[in-house]
Amino acid sequence: MKVLLIVSDGLGDRPIRELGGRTPLQAANTPNLDHVAKIGCCGIMDTISPGIPPGSDTAHLAIFGYDPYECYTGRGAFEALGMGINIKPGDVAFRANFATLEARESGLLVRDRRAGRRLPEGDRLAEKLNQYRLKTAKDVEFRFEHSVEHRGVLVLSGPGLSYRVSDTDPHETGEMLRESKPLDSSEEARKTAKIVNELSAAFHQILDGDPLNRERISRGDPPANGVLLRGAGILPEVTPLTERYGISCSCVAAAALYRGVAAAVGMKLYRAPGDTGSYDTDEESIAETALRILPENDLVFIHFKPTDNAGHDGDPETKVKMIEKLDNIMGKLLNGIDLENEHYVILTADHTTPCAVREHTGEPVPLEMAGPGVRPDKIAAFSEIDCQNGGLGRLRGKDIMPIMMDYLGKAKIFGS
Amino acid sequence: MKVLLIVSDGLGDRPIRELGGRTPLQAANTPNLDHVAKIGCCGIMDTISPGIPPGSDTAHLAIFGYDPYECYTGRGAFEALGMGINIKPGDVAFRANFATLEARESGLLVRDRRAGRRLPEGDRLAEKLNQYRLKTAKDVEFRFEHSVEHRGVLVLSGPGLSYRVSDTDPHETGEMLRESKPLDSSEEARKTAKIVNELSAAFHQILDGDPLNRERISRGDPPANGVLLRGAGILPEVTPLTERYGISCSCVAAAALYRGVAAAVGMKLYRAPGDTGSYDTDEESIAETALRILPENDLVFIHFKPTDNAGHDGDPETKVKMIEKLDNIMGKLLNGIDLENEHYVILTADHTTPCAVREHTGEPVPLEMAGPGVRPDKIAAFSEIDCQNGGLGRLRGKDIMPIMMDYLGKAKIFGS
Repeated sequence: MKVLLIVSDGLGDRPIRELGGRTPLQAANTPNLDHVAKIGCCGIMDTISPGIPPGSDTAHLAIFGYDPYECYTGRGAFEALGMGINIKPGDVAFRANFATLEARESGLLVRDRRAGRRLPEGDRLAEKLNQYRLKTAKDVEFRFEHSVEHRGVLVLSGPGLSYRVSDTDPHETGEMLRESKPLDSSEEARKTAKIVNELSAAFHQILDGDPLNRERISRGDPPANGVLLRGAGILPEVTPLTERYGISCSCVAAAALYRGVAAAVGMKLYRAPGDTGSYDTDEESIAETALRILPENDLVFIHFKPTDNAGHDGDPETKVKMIEKLDNIMGKLLNGIDLENEHYVILTADHTTPCAVREHTGEPVPLEMAGPGVRPDKIAAFSEIDCQNGGLGRLRGKDIMPIMMDYLGKAKIFGS
Repeated sequence: MKVLLIVSDGLGDRPIRELGGRTPLQAANTPNLDHVAKIGCCGIMDTISPGIPPGSDTAHLAIFGYDPYECYTGRGAFEALGMGINIKPGDVAFRANFATLEARESGLLVRDRRAGRRLPEGDRLAEKLNQYRLKTAKDVEFRFEHSVEHRGVLVLSGPGLSYRVSDTDPHETGEMLRESKPLDSSEEARKTAKIVNELSAAFHQILDGDPLNRERISRGDPPANGVLLRGAGILPEVTPLTERYGISCSCVAAAALYRGVAAAVGMKLYRAPGDTGSYDTDEESIAETALRILPENDLVFIHFKPTDNAGHDGDPETKVKMIEKLDNIMGKLLNGIDLENEHYVILTADHTTPCAVREHTGEPVPLEMAGPGVRPDKIAAFSEIDCQNGGLGRLRGKDIMPIMMDYLGKAKIFGS
C-alpha cells in the first residue's frame, strides 16, 4: 500500500463574479479530480484551525502531521534546506533578496525588492559578501548563499543565537529598509538582531560600491546594492516521518520552501524536469516523476505551485487553467496506479488564496481521497462547495497524516 | 429522563466486495437501528481523533467522557476490576494468560498462548503460584487470580511500583517469552520490571513440574506451564460519573475489560444471563437486563461484543448476523422505553474493526441518537456511509457524555 499526497498550493478560492459566481475549481474542466471525488470520499479541511490564514510553511507542517503551534520555528531554515544548504541545529537562517536601495536622509529606501529579478552576478556578489568579518560578535560566523534570480539565504552559526528577530525587509516597495528588532526579551534575540543590523549595513556598503553594480547601472539594470532579510528560522525539533511511522517518503517539488519542509520531516527530495513552479510548468513531468519514484516509497508528496501564483496575481482565468493542469496531473497518476488494491491518492491544498484577496485567507480547503476500503460518499465533483457536504466532514490539516498512516497499517493502536 | 448508551464493539467497517460493495451495517437487515436513525439524529465519531486506531480501553474511557491522553494508565487495572478483583491505588495489575511454553537453548518458546484454552485446573494452579514469595523486593506482595479458561490477572502491591513496563507476552505463537523492560528511566519502572521477570521465571518453574500439568499431558492437553503477562496498568485517577454529574449509572457487559472501565468510572456492574460476549450470546437477555435495571439508573451502558469478534475473525457474513442481533436488542429496548417523553437512546461503536483488516483501525464510527427534543436530520438508515451526512456532523468520543448529560439536565452552565 502506498500513498500519493498532492497539495495544490492556494487552490481554495471564493465564488467569483466573472466566473459566473463559481469558484475557479467549479469553473474548471476537471474530469479526473471529479472521478476521484466520485469513487472516493471528500471533505473540507482547516489546515491550522477555522479562520486562521496559514503560511505555506505552517500549512505543510500541519499536513505532514505536526502541530505548527508546537514546533514551528520560523521559515528560514526551510528555505535553506530547500536550497540544499546544510544547516545545523541552532543555526539561524534567513530568506534573503538582493534588492535595489536608494539612500535618503532618513535611511535606505527599498526601490525594488528584487533588484530587477534577473541577477547573473548573484554568485559573485555573494562571494564578496562572504569576505566580510563580523565585528559585534566574534563567536558567530555567517554564510550568504545565492540560489536563483534575486534569491538567497543567510545563515548565522554560533552560540547564543535566536530566531526571534524581526525582518529588515519592509515587504513593500517604496518603504524604508527596516532595523531588525528582538521579538522577545532574551539576550539571544538582542545579540542576533544586532548581528543582522550590522550585516544589513555592511552588505549595502559592500554592494553599493561594487564594479558589478556599476556595470548593471550602465546596462540599465537596477543595482543589487542591498540585501533584504526575512523569516528568521531554526530547524524545528520534529521526529521525522521516516522514524515516526517507519515509512520511506519523498517529495516532488520545485520551490525551496516546500522542499525544505519536506526535507525537515524526513523526505527525500526530487525535482521533476521542467517543473518551474510557474504557469509554464511541465505538469506531465511532475506526474511522471512521482510515478517513477513511487515503487521505492510508501508516501510520495507532490507540490503543485501555480494555482497559488494565480491567486496572488488575482487572475481567475489563469487559476482555472492551472487547475486544469492539476487535473492533467491527476489523470496521468490515475493511469499509473491501482486505487482498488494498492494505492491511495489524496488531493488537497495548503490554504485558500482567493483571486479577490490576492493573499492567503483562513477558509477551509477542499479535500478528496480514494483507495482500497475508503468509504464512499455522494460527492461527484471536486470543489470547495461540493466538498462541504462530503463524507469526511471538516478535518484539520494535522489529521491527514494519521488517516493515511492508518490506511497503510502504520498507525499504532492507542491503548489496548 | 434516562439514557441508554449502547456500544457495539468494532461495529464500524469498510465497503466489502463480497457484500456487494456495502459495509456489514449496510448489508444487514436493521429495521430498528434504522428507525432510531429516522426519528433521531446521526453522525460520525472519532473516538480518539481522526486516523487514530483506538484500543478498547481508551475508546471506552473517551466515550465515558474522559480524555485518554490525560488519564490512561494501562489496561491491567481494568481487567482486574472487571473480574471483580479489588485493587488499590498504586497496585499494578497485568492481564495474564496461562500458556504452553517449550524450553529452547535461547529461552522459552511460546507454543500455545492459551494452553489449549480449556483449563479446569486454573484455580488450583493459581493457588500454587500464590505460595511463592518474592526475592527481589521484600516490600512487594503479589496475587494471581484465575478467572475463566486460560485467563487471569496478576496484581502487585507495595511501594514504588510503576505500570511503565513492557509485556512478557510476545503476542504471537512461536515467538520467545519476552523479558519485561522498564518503559521509562524511573527507579519504579526498573523495580517493577525486575519483579515481573522474577515472577515470570518462577511461575514457569512452579508450573512446569506440577502434577496437574503431568495429568494434562497424559490426557493429551497442552500443559499450562507458563504465564504470559501483558497490559500493566494502575487505576486511573478519574472523578467517577456518579460524582462528576451526580448520576447513578450501570453497565451490562460480559467481558472483563469493559466491565472494568465501567467500574473505574463509577458504574455498577451487571451481567445478562446468557451474555457470552461471543456469537452465541443471548441478545434478548441483554436488552431485558438493561430494561430491568433502567428504573434505578440515570444511565445504562450496554456493551455488545460479537460485532468486534466478527471483524477480528475477518468474517463479513457473521458480522452481518451479529448486527442483526444488535438490531434485535434495539427492537426490544424500543418496546420498553418512551423516546418521546422519557428516554434517550444512543448507539455507537468504540472503533472500526474492518473484516478486511481484522484489527482496530482509525476510521470514524457511526452514531445515532434519539429522545425528547433531539433535533432530527434527514438520515433514515444507520450505516457508516449514511451517518456521514448526519446532523451531528463529525464528533469526538469525549463529546458523547457531555451531550447526554446536557439532555438529562445534569450539565452545568460554563460561565453565567
